[in-house]
Amino acid sequence: MNTIGHLINGKTFVEGSQSQDVFNPATGEVTKKVDLASKSTVEEAIASAQAAYPAWRNTPPMKRARIMFKFKQLLEENADKICELVGEEHGKIVHDAAGELQRGIENVEYACGIPELLKGEHSKNVGPNIDSWSEFQPLGVVAGITPFNFPVMVPLWMYPMAIACGNTFVLKPSERDPSSTLFVAQLLQEAGLPEGVFNVVNGGKEAVDTLLTDERVKAVSFVGSTPIAEYIYSTANANGKRCQALGGAKNHAIVMPDADMDNAVNQLLGAAFGSSGERCMALSVAVAVGDAAADQLVSKMKEAMVSLKVGNHSDKSNDFGPVITCAHKDKVVGYIDSAEENGAEVVVDGRNPQVSGYENGFFVGGTLLDRVTPDMLSYKEEIFGPVLQVVRVKTMQEAMDLIDAHEYGNGTCIFTRDGEAARYFSDNIQVGMVGINVPLPVPVAYHSFGGWKRSLFGDLHAYGPDAVRFYTKRKTITQRWPSAGVREGIEFSMPTMK
Amino acid sequence: MNTIGHLINGKTFVEGSQSQDVFNPATGEVTKKVDLASKSTVEEAIASAQAAYPAWRNTPPMKRARIMFKFKQLLEENADKICELVGEEHGKIVHDAAGELQRGIENVEYACGIPELLKGEHSKNVGPNIDSWSEFQPLGVVAGITPFNFPVMVPLWMYPMAIACGNTFVLKPSERDPSSTLFVAQLLQEAGLPEGVFNVVNGGKEAVDTLLTDERVKAVSFVGSTPIAEYIYSTANANGKRCQALGGAKNHAIVMPDADMDNAVNQLLGAAFGSSGERCMALSVAVAVGDAAADQLVSKMKEAMVSLKVGNHSDKSNDFGPVITCAHKDKVVGYIDSAEENGAEVVVDGRNPQVSGYENGFFVGGTLLDRVTPDMLSYKEEIFGPVLQVVRVKTMQEAMDLIDAHEYGNGTCIFTRDGEAARYFSDNIQVGMVGINVPLPVPVAYHSFGGWKRSLFGDLHAYGPDAVRFYTKRKTITQRWPSAGVREGIEFSMPTMK
Amino acid sequence: MNTIGHLINGKTFVEGSQSQDVFNPATGEVTKKVDLASKSTVEEAIASAQAAYPAWRNTPPMKRARIMFKFKQLLEENADKICELVGEEHGKIVHDAAGELQRGIENVEYACGIPELLKGEHSKNVGPNIDSWSEFQPLGVVAGITPFNFPVMVPLWMYPMAIACGNTFVLKPSERDPSSTLFVAQLLQEAGLPEGVFNVVNGGKEAVDTLLTDERVKAVSFVGSTPIAEYIYSTANANGKRCQALGGAKNHAIVMPDADMDNAVNQLLGAAFGSSGERCMALSVAVAVGDAAADQLVSKMKEAMVSLKVGNHSDKSNDFGPVITCAHKDKVVGYIDSAEENGAEVVVDGRNPQVSGYENGFFVGGTLLDRVTPDMLSYKEEIFGPVLQVVRVKTMQEAMDLIDAHEYGNGTCIFTRDGEAARYFSDNIQVGMVGINVPLPVPVAYHSFGGWKRSLFGDLHAYGPDAVRFYTKRKTITQRWPSAGVREGIEFSMPTMK
Amino acid sequence: MNTIGHLINGKTFVEGSQSQDVFNPATGEVTKKVDLASKSTVEEAIASAQAAYPAWRNTPPMKRARIMFKFKQLLEENADKICELVGEEHGKIVHDAAGELQRGIENVEYACGIPELLKGEHSKNVGPNIDSWSEFQPLGVVAGITPFNFPVMVPLWMYPMAIACGNTFVLKPSERDPSSTLFVAQLLQEAGLPEGVFNVVNGGKEAVDTLLTDERVKAVSFVGSTPIAEYIYSTANANGKRCQALGGAKNHAIVMPDADMDNAVNQLLGAAFGSSGERCMALSVAVAVGDAAADQLVSKMKEAMVSLKVGNHSDKSNDFGPVITCAHKDKVVGYIDSAEENGAEVVVDGRNPQVSGYENGFFVGGTLLDRVTPDMLSYKEEIFGPVLQVVRVKTMQEAMDLIDAHEYGNGTCIFTRDGEAARYFSDNIQVGMVGINVPLPVPVAYHSFGGWKRSLFGDLHAYGPDAVRFYTKRKTITQRWPSAGVREGIEFSMPTMK
Repeated sequence: MNTIGHLINGKTFVEGSQSQDVFNPATGEVTKKVDLASKSTVEEAIASAQAAYPAWRNTPPMKRARIMFKFKQLLEENADKICELVGEEHGKIVHDAAGELQRGIENVEYACGIPELLKGEHSKNVGPNIDSWSEFQPLGVVAGITPFNFPVMVPLWMYPMAIACGNTFVLKPSERDPSSTLFVAQLLQEAGLPEGVFNVVNGGKEAVDTLLTDERVKAVSFVGSTPIAEYIYSTANANGKRCQALGGAKNHAIVMPDADMDNAVNQLLGAAFGSSGERCMALSVAVAVGDAAADQLVSKMKEAMVSLKVGNHSDKSNDFGPVITCAHKDKVVGYIDSAEENGAEVVVDGRNPQVSGYENGFFVGGTLLDRVTPDMLSYKEEIFGPVLQVVRVKTMQEAMDLIDAHEYGNGTCIFTRDGEAARYFSDNIQVGMVGINVPLPVPVAYHSFGGWKRSLFGDLHAYGPDAVRFYTKRKTITQRWPSAGVREGIEFSMPTMK
Repeated sequence: MNTIGHLINGKTFVEGSQSQDVFNPATGEVTKKVDLASKSTVEEAIASAQAAYPAWRNTPPMKRARIMFKFKQLLEENADKICELVGEEHGKIVHDAAGELQRGIENVEYACGIPELLKGEHSKNVGPNIDSWSEFQPLGVVAGITPFNFPVMVPLWMYPMAIACGNTFVLKPSERDPSSTLFVAQLLQEAGLPEGVFNVVNGGKEAVDTLLTDERVKAVSFVGSTPIAEYIYSTANANGKRCQALGGAKNHAIVMPDADMDNAVNQLLGAAFGSSGERCMALSVAVAVGDAAADQLVSKMKEAMVSLKVGNHSDKSNDFGPVITCAHKDKVVGYIDSAEENGAEVVVDGRNPQVSGYENGFFVGGTLLDRVTPDMLSYKEEIFGPVLQVVRVKTMQEAMDLIDAHEYGNGTCIFTRDGEAARYFSDNIQVGMVGINVPLPVPVAYHSFGGWKRSLFGDLHAYGPDAVRFYTKRKTITQRWPSAGVREGIEFSMPTMK
Repeated sequence: MNTIGHLINGKTFVEGSQSQDVFNPATGEVTKKVDLASKSTVEEAIASAQAAYPAWRNTPPMKRARIMFKFKQLLEENADKICELVGEEHGKIVHDAAGELQRGIENVEYACGIPELLKGEHSKNVGPNIDSWSEFQPLGVVAGITPFNFPVMVPLWMYPMAIACGNTFVLKPSERDPSSTLFVAQLLQEAGLPEGVFNVVNGGKEAVDTLLTDERVKAVSFVGSTPIAEYIYSTANANGKRCQALGGAKNHAIVMPDADMDNAVNQLLGAAFGSSGERCMALSVAVAVGDAAADQLVSKMKEAMVSLKVGNHSDKSNDFGPVITCAHKDKVVGYIDSAEENGAEVVVDGRNPQVSGYENGFFVGGTLLDRVTPDMLSYKEEIFGPVLQVVRVKTMQEAMDLIDAHEYGNGTCIFTRDGEAARYFSDNIQVGMVGINVPLPVPVAYHSFGGWKRSLFGDLHAYGPDAVRFYTKRKTITQRWPSAGVREGIEFSMPTMK
Repeated sequence: MNTIGHLINGKTFVEGSQSQDVFNPATGEVTKKVDLASKSTVEEAIASAQAAYPAWRNTPPMKRARIMFKFKQLLEENADKICELVGEEHGKIVHDAAGELQRGIENVEYACGIPELLKGEHSKNVGPNIDSWSEFQPLGVVAGITPFNFPVMVPLWMYPMAIACGNTFVLKPSERDPSSTLFVAQLLQEAGLPEGVFNVVNGGKEAVDTLLTDERVKAVSFVGSTPIAEYIYSTANANGKRCQALGGAKNHAIVMPDADMDNAVNQLLGAAFGSSGERCMALSVAVAVGDAAADQLVSKMKEAMVSLKVGNHSDKSNDFGPVITCAHKDKVVGYIDSAEENGAEVVVDGRNPQVSGYENGFFVGGTLLDRVTPDMLSYKEEIFGPVLQVVRVKTMQEAMDLIDAHEYGNGTCIFTRDGEAARYFSDNIQVGMVGINVPLPVPVAYHSFGGWKRSLFGDLHAYGPDAVRFYTKRKTITQRWPSAGVREGIEFSMPTMK
């Protein structure tokens, strides 16, 4: 059986001391193994990155960018292969994997513009004949720790910009679906990146803790759940590292009575169930303002959900695939059970989906819960499954209060035609990414991604302009030249110290 | 005896439960008392800031800026009074206090430009008919904790920008010289700031810890010593707050053999001894490249130091005044003793200055130590006194290695005429603020202030452009309007939910 | 009788060879005379600006800004006097003059931020050890030529930014209402501007042509009518000068059926009749979509116009005052006559207003014309009077086609609640300044002002960020230092050429 | 014989009514013909661009960028072919053509970042609940007119950015070497650009004048000689078009006595003779400060020039090739003759180069003239040939005065090690592009290219950030939403106009 290893200093290899099963979640079968790096292997990766740093730091940004141009090209040429690898281990349908890859490529495209993005500010005459300017210099070795749900995209949020900024990188991807991440890393190597600039180690807590404590690592980017994000952030900070750690979410959509309801339903379908709801931007709660809107929403949603098709990643007619593990399947079902017990109405029940030919797969069908209330566990916690919950409120203000009271503040959306309602909502809601009739308001790669409240720990958001600031440190230089000796011909011969 | 109190919700008052002496360091006498706020007084300040926040957040930036314009005017009109207050409690000479005030005012001037600085990025057509833009929204209640050495300037690094960004503020200044800080705060109130937007509490650890743990406080800015900075940073982070904490420094100047030596000496004089060396940007180490340069530097420096005049703040002919406390005087003298014992040559000895009429003042005279080595305590630690140490090296690279090996990385400088040397130095040195023939490379107010290594904890630097990012959080909005119903006249009557 | 003269090299004086009457338009009486500068006086102003240029160019931007801070303060302290001067010669009501002044002051506030605005772009390592950066250097002597309708504001669009950028300036204001412009110029002098940096010459075509042809003048900013703008632009260009020339306008508001009609009427009242409609951003055409909207608009407008009060500038209860000259009054009335003859319905007739006590004043009352068509002269040309014309169309597209077909493209507005309609309108309309429920979409001072089509000649808009680009030229510097001789100690003694 | 035609609406064709010979300048033989477009063919190109505009304008910038990504890839894949085409018709050696292509590609790379570059400025609360933002909208159909000396690079300065900004384009390249330009245009078509977005017409004055007068063309970019640039600029402006027209140059290098002379000579060799000096950034005058520096420069230069090799484009060991035409060869030789007659010393004489096997080619060898004076014709005019002239001065100030007195102000350079001299020079010299020890200070693609004085007509420079401003117009939108009816549930049913 194939074992997925590590990429260090331009070479892939398997350490061999410890490994873990990799499943195909659609069949429930173990298909590969993933090697788990020991502390010394991680340290080797860090050393490799450290060694590559000085030369890479001094490589002109335009040359660094050119490798990103080539990388983009290779990603596009290898798109099918990448999507297949994602599908096999994560379970998402290939069209969904293609969307993930596309979003990832957009971050590479942004990194191609690094010469522009790295410009500092130059001030002439801050005093008489004194000039001052800022430079944004790289940090050194930077680490990334990424989740299973976007094995291609989330790493691409991090390392293209970090590397384009002049840093070298060690990535610790999810051990659940490591193949696509590693394959993509090899494409970057193939694009001409010098050895050691980008390294990948697979592993578990030992690997993570090594990255968090090794003093050669200057910064850590993390995406995952909130408890882990909090751990990563505090540990990294205590070890003198810069850190940004993105955690969980509970994204609400407000459905206003004046919304174009067919459009809203259509948007919600993809936003709630796409990728089995295993997205930190999944729209998992619809807050309907007024019972009339709620009734219409639920009935149209129920109708639309009839056509939802669950199954294997390779069949493009499927809408979504299995969840990542058997344990996670049980957890999602548990949330539905609990909501039902506490009075929610299970309008569409996905707890026992029939997926012919994939009876052992970790499938949960699209589920619609109505009359969910804020005290239910299914409302309070992030389900990370294909479950859309409808909460009914009387006013828009009540809907907004609900959102603001939630622990998380990642994404949110309002469905309305009304300019005033949209502006009031986007201005006041305590959420970092806001959609107006856009259910998944994931910023494009040239803006930045980040939630508020306990959805993100750190000052700066992920990718886009903020990534430049996160992956560099500001240096300010103030310069005055002492006298006009040479210019005025007084001393063509410089004073010597003899 | 006058007791300095607090400014909360527009009113000054003394709590009265606990207080501490305020000295005139030039006479050694207690001249005032400062009230130390209890937890409940600090909470009252926070509550006041919290109450003022919603209205202030919604005040257009241009209107917020206008209060800063008026504030600047009042600072200029009250300059003499402010400098006098600084001098009486801190001891710095009035011309030095005037310089401090001027640097502070420049931060107010920068805050006057907040409408420009708060601009977000707008992208048309991120997708078909989808637009996206970013807004930089205020955080809420923000706290500042500031040191004794710049009682006017360092607070002005923080609150003008924080408030201009739409936050409300609680400042905990140094309890050693609280009068000028409070007086300046009252001027801001007088400039038309709504009550509660800016509050000042004097106090000690109880006050600090209240600010660090109260969940209504969203961010903390700190300037002080590194151990405290580290404590502030980790505590604030653990309590879910954004934090930037500026700590200690050990600023080296490299003196190259081709330097204009008279100019270098002249510059070093002010940079090493100004404000008794109690500046985090004080230039306390001169690294001479080659013995010839060192000999010339030491001899010219010694000669120049003859004219240095130490004394009371009110006499403008003085160059610098006392250090802040008796204990600090002893500490500074201890560093000199220790260096001498370990082989440094005391070229100019300031340990027993004669300041006629101020025999009980906390004075240390300008001191020049030659042949200091990196293993000496006086080299390793921040002295924060009027002591310039000369280290001799053979090459510029050796000088740079020395700087990079030091724990701190705040400021540094090179004296040379040579473009290549200057560029190599500024590019490679691991220090955040670099001067080329500029001994105190404090960035102007429209750039940002920040050291590297253990001189600053946090991602973003103080004041200037970084202050906008520190005192705001990014919100990204993505907007699509659903259909052309109204525009195309299909549905002038919006669908209702009856 | 008082004669208004010139300000050159810090001194005001009257040349005395030629002059022109200045009227009080509310009484129809001549109250002052204005001196008309001969070519030699204008050349003297240019010479004065030229002489002041080198020192001013080298004054640090922060110091230049400080004069703007002081200027703002003086403008505010002298607000009543300024408004009175405007009212006496222009006729606008003092509250309207105060609004004009306020808008002008906002440009001074923006100029206070010049250190930030002048920042160039710095790129490290454009090649190996090669850096490059841009500087925005001033042009030299710059001229401004301004219209009668905003004697305070429009000059303040120009010279504060031009001067803050490091240029020196010669202003040729309107000869119809010169007093306030000159008074304001003296305040800038009083604020500490070095003599010769800012000069004012009153005059006619001879003065204008001297400015347009003198080779020492590097750039010209103009605001006025389109035929003159076109002349200014082509003449300035033919003489090697940079030029921006703002011309006429015909600003339409689309009133959609879903608009909040009371709000729309309320907004239109001020936008159409304020300042007697003598504004290049006056909203002079309301395009109602559908007869129902049109009927409602016209009836509500008619009702609202009953309360409009016309009269002398000093009475704050008045809504607007006279037009600028008797000839202009006749011209405005002529447009109304012509529209009526061609079938427009005169709903409210302002042709013979009764202004008790001011029977000889140049008054036209608020006039509302319905059923205006695009072929009428009153529609095609800019009336510059208190006349609102209603055009009726069937669809929003028809309304937009109308706007796009007009020669001018200065400002426009839509009244609607609908996000989609607003976005389609603002995206597609061929007009430079667009309001969404904002009838006078004059950009704030930190954005830029400029129309499209024949409303503006030139690449860059007025004031705001574009002003920095207009009043400076880009210089790009590329730097490499040749070898490490000095740094590596090989040649402390520079090679000499003996 | 092959005839080079036009590319209109995605198709290449030959009109056939008029044509002109295309030479191989190394052999002196006619190798192809180029079709000269009539007015109607140019109008067809404009119509094609006009038709393609609406859809292209609405294509999201990210999608427009993707075509540029693909274009870059095709340019790299076809590099050899392109360089061969350039060499055959222009004569430059293939390594030089490769350099030209590379510089061109860098502009395509910059255009790939258009989503970032098109961001407008968004301001929240410019007034209470009023927002304002700017959009940079494309102009429509834009034309480019380009010179023979960079048939690949100069067009690539223009159309990639113009097209990425959303414009459509008509290019009129030089009729002397049209093949490479057309071939490159076809690659852009192949990259997926919709038909009609980019069109190429070959032609002469008729074609140019059609572009300058057709009202559908909104802007013109030109690079060529100053007299033509002036004609283009004034004609375009008179026809209501935006224009930037880059003209001639006379680029001086100051050689200071402290310069690294070997480095200076080495740099000058390439900068003066590369591409036979047919570059608007060619360094054609060396101003030596002091006779010692001059003597050393001339003697080292003479020695170095011995190895200069002139010949056919395909032989990579050659340094440069022929000039473009026989007439141009005569003109260059005439300048040398004239200088000699007027007292210049011909140190190295390139008037009769022996190029074996290419006896009929238009060759001029590298020529070095010493003791050139400012009154000589060869100094006053742009030679555009491989001639380096040495002028001797006594002081750096004299050298700078010379440069500032010249009609042109394109590029300049100083050779020195001294920071002060370099800063004084770059600050004060009246030239748009300044090199410090960089002899050809052509800004990289992410800065902008532009000379001062009569080297450029227009406000904005070519390519880089300025290109965004040149190829777009600013629209400022101000938005307020009228009332909270929908949000507050008062009127879910919008008011209708029945």
